This record gives sequence, C-alpha cells and structure tokens, in this order.
Amino acid sequence: MRAVQVVEYHKNLEMKDIPEPTVRGPLDVIVRIGGAGVCRTDLHILEGQWAEKSGVTLPYTIGHENAGWVHAVGDAVTGVAPGDPVILHPLATCGQCAACRAGDDVHCTNSAFPGIDSNGGYADYLRTSYRSVVKLDDSLAPADVAALADAGLTAYHAVAKAARVLRPGQIAVMIGAGGLGHIGIQVLKAISGATLVVTDRNPAALAMAEELGADHTLLSDARGSHIDAVLELTGGHGAEAVIDFVGEGGATAEGVRMLRRAGNYYVIGYGENINVPTIDIISTEINFIGNLVGSYTDLSELMVLAAQGKVTLHTTKYPLDDFQQAIDDLDNGRVRGRAILIP
Amino acid sequence: MRAVQVVEYHKNLEMKDIPEPTVRGPLDVIVRIGGAGVCRTDLHILEGQWAEKSGVTLPYTIGHENAGWVHAVGDAVTGVAPGDPVILHPLATCGQCAACRAGDDVHCTNSAFPGIDSNGGYADYLRTSYRSVVKLDDSLAPADVAALADAGLTAYHAVAKAARVLRPGQIAVMIGAGGLGHIGIQVLKAISGATLVVTDRNPAALAMAEELGADHTLLSDARGSHIDAVLELTGGHGAEAVIDFVGEGGATAEGVRMLRRAGNYYVIGYGENINVPTIDIISTEINFIGNLVGSYTDLSELMVLAAQGKVTLHTTKYPLDDFQQAIDDLDNGRVRGRAILIP
Amino acid sequence: MRAVQVVEYHKNLEMKDIPEPTVRGPLDVIVRIGGAGVCRTDLHILEGQWAEKSGVTLPYTIGHENAGWVHAVGDAVTGVAPGDPVILHPLATCGQCAACRAGDDVHCTNSAFPGIDSNGGYADYLRTSYRSVVKLDDSLAPADVAALADAGLTAYHAVAKAARVLRPGQIAVMIGAGGLGHIGIQVLKAISGATLVVTDRNPAALAMAEELGADHTLLSDARGSHIDAVLELTGGHGAEAVIDFVGEGGATAEGVRMLRRAGNYYVIGYGENINVPTIDIISTEINFIGNLVGSYTDLSELMVLAAQGKVTLHTTKYPLDDFQQAIDDLDNGRVRGRAILIP
Amino acid sequence: MRAVQVVEYHKNLEMKDIPEPTVRGPLDVIVRIGGAGVCRTDLHILEGQWAEKSGVTLPYTIGHENAGWVHAVGDAVTGVAPGDPVILHPLATCGQCAACRAGDDVHCTNSAFPGIDSNGGYADYLRTSYRSVVKLDDSLAPADVAALADAGLTAYHAVAKAARVLRPGQIAVMIGAGGLGHIGIQVLKAISGATLVVTDRNPAALAMAEELGADHTLLSDARGSHIDAVLELTGGHGAEAVIDFVGEGGATAEGVRMLRRAGNYYVIGYGENINVPTIDIISTEINFIGNLVGSYTDLSELMVLAAQGKVTLHTTKYPLDDFQQAIDDLDNGRVRGRAILIP
Repeated sequence: MRAVQVVEYHKNLEMKDIPEPTVRGPLDVIVRIGGAGVCRTDLHILEGQWAEKSGVTLPYTIGHENAGWVHAVGDAVTGVAPGDPVILHPLATCGQCAACRAGDDVHCTNSAFPGIDSNGGYADYLRTSYRSVVKLDDSLAPADVAALADAGLTAYHAVAKAARVLRPGQIAVMIGAGGLGHIGIQVLKAISGATLVVTDRNPAALAMAEELGADHTLLSDARGSHIDAVLELTGGHGAEAVIDFVGEGGATAEGVRMLRRAGNYYVIGYGENINVPTIDIISTEINFIGNLVGSYTDLSELMVLAAQGKVTLHTTKYPLDDFQQAIDDLDNGRVRGRAILIP
Repeated sequence: MRAVQVVEYHKNLEMKDIPEPTVRGPLDVIVRIGGAGVCRTDLHILEGQWAEKSGVTLPYTIGHENAGWVHAVGDAVTGVAPGDPVILHPLATCGQCAACRAGDDVHCTNSAFPGIDSNGGYADYLRTSYRSVVKLDDSLAPADVAALADAGLTAYHAVAKAARVLRPGQIAVMIGAGGLGHIGIQVLKAISGATLVVTDRNPAALAMAEELGADHTLLSDARGSHIDAVLELTGGHGAEAVIDFVGEGGATAEGVRMLRRAGNYYVIGYGENINVPTIDIISTEINFIGNLVGSYTDLSELMVLAAQGKVTLHTTKYPLDDFQQAIDDLDNGRVRGRAILIP
Repeated sequence: MRAVQVVEYHKNLEMKDIPEPTVRGPLDVIVRIGGAGVCRTDLHILEGQWAEKSGVTLPYTIGHENAGWVHAVGDAVTGVAPGDPVILHPLATCGQCAACRAGDDVHCTNSAFPGIDSNGGYADYLRTSYRSVVKLDDSLAPADVAALADAGLTAYHAVAKAARVLRPGQIAVMIGAGGLGHIGIQVLKAISGATLVVTDRNPAALAMAEELGADHTLLSDARGSHIDAVLELTGGHGAEAVIDFVGEGGATAEGVRMLRRAGNYYVIGYGENINVPTIDIISTEINFIGNLVGSYTDLSELMVLAAQGKVTLHTTKYPLDDFQQAIDDLDNGRVRGRAILIP
Repeated sequence: MRAVQVVEYHKNLEMKDIPEPTVRGPLDVIVRIGGAGVCRTDLHILEGQWAEKSGVTLPYTIGHENAGWVHAVGDAVTGVAPGDPVILHPLATCGQCAACRAGDDVHCTNSAFPGIDSNGGYADYLRTSYRSVVKLDDSLAPADVAALADAGLTAYHAVAKAARVLRPGQIAVMIGAGGLGHIGIQVLKAISGATLVVTDRNPAALAMAEELGADHTLLSDARGSHIDAVLELTGGHGAEAVIDFVGEGGATAEGVRMLRRAGNYYVIGYGENINVPTIDIISTEINFIGNLVGSYTDLSELMVLAAQGKVTLHTTKYPLDDFQQAIDDLDNGRVRGRAILIP
C-alpha cells in the first residue's frame, strides 16, 4: 500500500510502497484511511524537533489526525465492525494502568502516539486497537472530521472543562480565534450559557468568531485596549474564565489581567512561561488549569456535536499523492481551514 | 395604597386601602410592584389549604411572584437604589443561619414567604429586605418576568442541576410541557448540549415544546408508547436524566421505566409517591433528586437568560383592579400563559 | 484441579475434579485461589433464586469473592506477573463500552459475573482477565481480604460517595452494623471528618461499631427511640446523610425521618420499597442515591486502606475440602465474621 | 477601655484608653476579646508595609486574629447571644454582593479587615457584625483558638480543597511544617485517607510533623534529596497534590518537580513567582490552585475539628498589658507556637 514516510530529518517526505498492516492480536483494528489531517506538528517533525522526544526509528509513516472506515478487526473487538466509519483518538492507550482504568486515558503511563512515535495515517491503511476508534454517525464523512482528532479534541477538552463551572451571566474570554479557537467557540456556545468574548490580533479571525457565535469580539493590540474592554464589560472585575489558545507573545500576562478574582485560567496554547507572583495568585485566589488533548469520552462527545452540526470545520482536501503540495501550502500559509489528505 | 387581601377563607379576595409600607430597618427595601403573578397556589390559599401550614393571620395581602422597581431602601442597602427594576426571590431569608451562609438560602431555617405567610405583592408596594431583590437588566420589564420568580425559578433550579452532569449525546426526558416545563425546555437548550425529549398528554403543549427547542416530542398515552419510543431512541438503555414536572397520575412509574442505569430522576412535580423497590434502585444504581425553588443565585442566572432573550414567558396582563377577573380566568382555564396583575 | 460446583438446584454442592483453566487470550489471567468468601448469595444460588436471572448452565463452579496469586498471564497483560498477590473485582467487564471507557465499569453493558454466571473461585484456579485483577500490597494475605471483593467493595463505594460531600460537623447515620456496615464504619472514619452515628437492633453489633470508631451508637427499636435520638443530636434537623445497609423491615421509612433537609439517602440494603410522597421529596429537597458494587478504582482504593490497616475484616477459615461445613455454618449463623475457603 | 494602637509607622505600639464600642446597627455584635493572636503581619504593619494597601488612618487598634465572648448584639442578630464564646472570621463582609450571596464571602467586593484597615482585637472589646462571628463549642476557650482565625483558616481552606479530590493511596506533599503547615497536617489526617508526606528544612519541625500524623517526613536540602525521595516513593510519578506553605526560596520549582501528571499544586505561601513553561503545564496537564483565607463556613468546620480535639495549637499567652513583650518575643524568634494576648 501507499505510505508517506519520514525517511530522514531535514529532507522531504517520500511516498513508499509498504505491506498493508494486518490484524495481529484480538483487539487490533485495521482502519482504511478516509482522511488524514496535515498539521504544523508534521512540519516540526521533519525539522527534527521531535526526534529525541519520540525516539522513533526512521523511516516511519507520518500523520496523527486520522479518520476512515474499519477494514478488519481482531476476534475480541465488540464495538465496531468492518465498514463502520470511525475517527481515531490520537493516543493508543494501554487500557491497563490506573489512569486508563479511571477513564483518564490521556494520562496512560504506557501509550503510543501513531504518526509521532509509530506508523501514522498518511497511508492507505493504519493498524490501531479498539481503544482508539470512535464510531461516527453515518452522517459524518471521515475526511470532514479527521482534523478534529487532535486539535479539535484539545479545544473541546479545555472548553468543556470550563463550561462545567461557568454559569449564565459569567464571562469566558478566549484568546485566539485560530485553529483551536474556532472549534472552541462553537463548543462553548453549544454546551454553555456563558457569555463569550473572543480576542485576536487578526480582524478576519474575529469576523469568523462572530459568525460562529462569539458574543463579543475584541481586536487585541499592543496597547492592551482589549484588556480595557474586558474590564469595562465586567464592571472592572475581569472574566470568570480565560481560555488561552495562544500562550506566547505576551498572551499570558495579558490574560491574567483580564481574569477575575477566583477565576480560572485555562492554559492550552504554549510557548512562553506562566510567570506570576505567588502573592497575586493567592490574594486573588486564581487558578491555572493545564489542558492536554481530551479523552476517548471527550472525542465521543465532540463527534456528537459534529453529527448535530454544532461543530464544523473548514477543510481543503488533497489527494494523498499530492502530500508535498499540502505540506508546502501549509508551510506557506496558503491553506484555508485545515489541509486533509485523502488516500 | 391598594392591596388585594384574603379576608376570610372560602370567600373572594377583597381590595383594601392600607398604609404604604415604609423602611423600618437599615436592610429593608420597599418595592413598587410592576407585576404580580397569579398562581394556582393563590386559589389553594383561598380554599384554606395553606391556612394551617402558613399560620398567617387574616387579613393579609396575597401574591408571591413579584417584580417591580425599588422605591426606597434602608441605610445599609448597597446593591440596589430607588428606581432600579427588580424581581423578588419568593423567600425572605435570614442571612444568618448555616444554610444562608453557604449560599443555600432555600434551606434557610428562618425564612418568610411573602404572599403566603406575610404580605405579598397584589398591591401597590411591598416591603422586603435586600436578601430578596435581584436587580434586572434595563431591557426587562418587571411585569414580563414576575412569573419567573417562583415557578420559573423552580424549573431553572432543577434543569441547571441536571445540566451540570449531562454531556453531548446524553438524553434528558422532560415529563410535562406546561408552566414549568416550557421554562425548563428553554433553560436546558440554553445551557447544555444534551438532547432533549419532551413528553406530554397534550399535543398543543408538544407543539410549543418543539417550537421552544425540544429535539424530540412524544405524545404520552396510557399504553406507554412514549416509553417505548424513549427506549428505542436510546438503544434500549433509557435516558441519562428524567426531569419530571408532573409527579402524579402514574408519571413517576413511567418515568423510572425511561431511566437509564446510573441515571438521575429529578422530582419537581408532585402528587403521588415515589414507590420503587430498593432492589431496583441498587441494581440499576439510579438516583432520585428532589428539587425545591432555586436560590438567589439561581434567580440571578435565570434573569440573565431572560435578558438575553433565551427564556421568555407568555403572559396575559390585567390591571390590579381586575384581580377577580384574573382569578376567575385562571380558575376556568382561560389564561394563555401566566396571568399578571399590574398595579 | 478441585472445584466445588453447583450440580443441581436444591441439592448440595459437590467437589469435582476438572481441568485447570489455561490462558486462551493475550489478556487472560489465571489466578491460583488463596481464599474464596462464602456469601449468603451462595445459599440463594443453591435455592435456585438466581437460576433464571444468571442463565448459567449447570454444573458450574461457585464463588464470587476471590483473591489469590497470579499463576499465568496472556502475552498482552502488563500490570501483573505470576506470583503477584491479587484480589478480583467481582465483574469481568468488557473494557470497550462507553461506561468502561469512562471508568464506570460497573455499568458495563457486556460484563460477566464469575461465580454467578460463569466459573468462580471455590476451586484451585480461576480464569479471568486483566480487567478484574487488583494487585495487593505484599503485606496483605489474599485469604484475609477476599471477602472485601464484593460486600466490602459495595460498602466502600457508597461510603466514599457520601464522604465526598460530608464536611466536619455534619452527621452521617448508618443503619445496620452487620457485614457491610462494619466495613462502612471503618471506611468513613478513615476518609472523612464527619460525625458517625450507627444504629442497629443488635447490641453486640453496636459494641463492635463503637470499637471500630462510631462516634455514637443507637439501639434501634420499634418505638423509634433511635429516630428521636438522632433528631435530638441534630437540633431537630436530622442528619446530612443516611447510609442504609438494611433496606427492609421499615428501615427506609425510619431512615427518611432521620434525614435533614437537602440530605442524601444512600440506598444499599434492599428488600422493601422506597415509598415516599413526592411532596415530601420536593419540600425538603432530599435525594435518594442508589449504590451498586464499586468500580475497579474503588477496589484499588479499598485495598490501600486494607494495606494501611485502616480496614480489617474478621474471618473464619476453612480448607476448601470442608466447603460443606462452611456452608452449613453460614446457614446456621455459626460463622464469626466471614467464612473463607482456602484451597 | 484598653486598646493597643498603631500611632505611627516605625514606632512602637501604644496602649491607649478609648471608648468602648457600642451597638450602632441591628446587625452589630460587640465582642469582649478573650484572646488576640500576635502575627508576623503585625510586625509588617508597624514597618509600614501595609500603609498604602490598607489606607487606614492612624491611630487605630491592631489585631486580626480574635476570639472572645459576645458582649452585646443588635436587635436583628439571631445566631448568637451575649455570653456566647465566639471566634471572628478575619473579614467583615457585606453579605449583599454576588460572592457573599453564593457563600463565597472571601471574594466579597466590599469587605473590611479589622486589625488591618479598621479597629482590631488588641483591646478589651471589638465591634463587628453577625457576619464575622462563629459560635464556639463550650469546650473551647477563645484564647486557645484565636490564632486559628486567620493562619489556621487559610491552612484549612487549602487542605480541605485538596482533600475533596484526594483518594486513598494518593500522595499529598506538604512543603513547610511551620505555622500553617502544622495545622494543615492535622486537618488532612482528620478529613482524608490520602498519604501525607511533609518536607521542611528544619528537623524539629519534621519531628513535630510526625507527631501530628505525617506518614512520611523528608528533610529538604539544596541537593533536592527530598525531591528524589518523593519520586522514589511514587514510582517516579510524583504526588497527586503538592500543598505549598512556603512559596519562596525555590520552593515552587522544587514543588513542581514533585508533582505528578494531572496533579494539583496548591499555592498558599508566597514570595517568589510561579514561573513554569506553558509547554510543561499542558504536556503534564498540571494545575496551580490559588488559596486565600477560608470562608465563614470553612471557619465553622475548622472549629468543629478543634472542638473534637482533632486540631490543636501550641500557644504562649501574654496579658494584654505585656503586648510589647509578645511583639519582641515574636520578632526575636522566642515564641513557642503562637503568641496570644489576653485582655
């Protein structure tokens, strides 16, 4: 079968012909790929940024945002059958550690990350286990949702956590209306009665945020006029939640200034440090809440919202053979929405 | 001032001229009534059903769903000022007991219930304390929201409790799309991503439920076809939540049959007994959750939803002087939505 | 190997020689039994009470409270290795349904119950999967904890749920200081600062309750003097939690009278109905909380308390060959603590 | 009456004769001081560190950890009566803002802080309102618990928050076994089944920690041997909770290294910055939880633990007239436990 592989760092990906994966154990699932998201992380992999961290042996198949159809299953798999449309949770978890047993599979102490440290989805087929596959509603095409598998799942996870404690009349400020943010906006409006303020440096992103349901949009600038606007909107108190999809370029310091006493700061974007005096943390009793990708259950819930049409994603589709074009377009900022490879 | 009073049980209400209430303590608030809801409980009061329970001394002014404008405040009142539009929480709580201190003022061990056990709002003015008044957004007319003060607040309280644990893809069945139910529908859709199924015996009520956002509506009948439909909709498992606004005529037994393992049964309507074998409760691990009127904080949140246009109420308005007409219309089923007296 | 089997209902169990179970799949675990609890349910099985419900084919090996040492494991098992002491969760869950994925494996839609519907632990060896085995601390002898696998786990589950919302100064009333109750007492005192009141009809049980840490013990009687005592102890308000290990003989009606407004009634014992007017449930806003056996995670936590010496169990040990004696002793009330069969 | 006052910054306190406070409003409470804690903050006030922040006008009476007996109450006070022993919550909250109404009175938008920005308790009498007074059990002497009013309440608040999510077998590391820490140790052991590890640079503090119930004590040193020990104790994973009573001198960086994935870092001590890369926060999904003083309800719960003998405090008592001696002893490290002034 076809598989796009990393053959060497700082070199282009190459299309190879490799054997189709087969069922080896009773809980294996072979997925025929319907769509594989092209992510900025893929560029970083090629640059060697993940080489040491992942420890992967080259060559291997890249692609960590995958969806498709079940092609074959091991004897013991009960939840899906060949032909079922599925999306793949990015982690292949063990199911046996304490975290997995508590439903907190993101903190599995023994997980793999296909596309990063093992063969991924820029290919015709992928082998995974029952633990990664979430069955899709028949109304959803795998290629349309593949890019929700990682970035979208992270946004859902953080926003759903915030929504559980937000009440009508409370304010959530989202910093960043980009890839994760535009999913986050849709999720928050779908599951919460909180008021949503979105800030971004890009007026076009804000226009889209408004279209997706943001209650207020604020252009952020170096003078901090968006901070002033949030304070004015909240009677000087700040917002009950700040959901930060940026995490660099000064975003966190600005975010803290927009946060109310006893508020929660959700860290999702990364790059700079959270650097806040403990006296400020205790005197205002604020919290900083870390957010990784969501759980299998989170992904199932996100797929419900997708099937209900409450969360949608702009995609640009490329045949798998045009992988280099997709990579180049992403690298040069020419992709509208998310690039998806279709085998 | 004018005040409509209970002068004797089993006799008509009478309009009296009594002195205007005045500020007696530093935390008192005098409210000029803008609208007072006419509730079925008022009919029961006249029938003497509450005589022993409330222990009120006749004559007294009736009316327990009140909104208006602040007319005067005691020296120590800080949250509202004369002229502010306000709605009144039905309970005048003490603020000093352990429940009040924990924000759970509904379980105040020392509360009064104006309109039931002390002077209420069928009048030009009402004396209450700062603890009952929730300031309204300028966009809300007191007469339009008065009827949310009690029935609406009860619906909000129960539905918000359910919403905190419901996730996208989970099912909430509401039994009864009447006075409380039609608020409950709007609230659930505003603050949750759960799927809402509404059952009622009245096709007209279901038509309205659908208009207000119910995802599925099911006509309930003696054969239990609605129960079958819920089971079919849920793969035979039943719903994660049943929110019962009826509580009589066999509703609870039907409701339990629609409930999933580990599900929550929210009791709001009343009349019959919850009568379920303990073996069934433990083997399916279901819960029965009691619901009284909401807290002050709940009422504040409900008023936010009202100001945002997410919760609306049909009302029929009567001048205060036409109180007898309103009472008669309610008694004879001639009121569309809720009857409101306007002083 | 030896296996004590149900050969026919309404007939004595029989010792048989059957083949040792072997690893058939990569996630199988073979356990050498170190102790198997003899439970009243075993008597009911022999009486045929479970015949229809379990649908088990006779003959089969009985015994659902099991602990021992890992004897062999499938290729994919990572958490345990031969020689490890383990206790077995009573359910063999699928790991693939939504409930299992959320860590709520008790509501697995596809579980088996060894000893009830498949071969159990009155035998030298038992086959199960990785999903049932909780590794024990080296300080714990399997035979000493086997009886915590089911009854103890149920008590832990309910009490831990109660403890999560009880605060210092709040009162928990436990009804019944028998098999489950005496575990419940130890658990509540180990993980909570609440005040514990235990009621029972048996003075000897109360003496033990006091020894195990109950703050107050009350002899229950037909006059309801224990109810009066709880009300007196709580200023007439009742207890924040009632944890009912009895559930029959009028316990639930008595329990409700001891419950405070906004209190939680934990249903664990069974026999009679919860039969309470909805008006009482809503006007006091009380909850009834069903409790089944605990999860795998619950069992892990209970084993921590056991290893720390915070939860202990009285046992009377019998060689496996003396199974009939153990059964007879249990049937005739001659067992002190729990009877355990030792292969 | 006698009152010890700040007359000028950088000058000694002075004993003055000022008029006794009297009831001015219906919710006022006059307390006869039974004990006033001498706190390091009092030294900082004299040094002028709080001058700008508090904005207090000199002279005023110092002392913010107060307990005593009710001397007189306003007409509307219901919860306490003259003669009742009471402890005073450090904040005099408004009771009217949204935070107060939700039971979260620490985030009152309109509170005073007696002893800091208004007259405090180094005096014979103090005027406060019903909102500050928590009635004590008759077994508690005000002078014995006064010092729990602020420092103890802060420790209780943070530890109780941690205890709500800690389970048996999970590890809490407390950094610092000083004034707050030794209360925190007692609280955690009283309300939780978690395993407690205490680190401190002072062997004597660790000896006391062990006596108070710490499961493990670790001498912290510059090489970080305590960090290694925590990692070893937790199989390399770190602790589910780090409760940091120090917050300076490198404690936070050390604390983060001892924290497990998905763990909670409770910030209580202060001095340095939390300075952590966002990539570390998200990739391990850790949280930083701010902690201010506890609520009125928290103080009520802490007083229950004190009355039950589960939380005790070492005190050294001085007659009020010897205030200078107490201040000097504190400043020179000569006080064992907490210094208390007794009028």
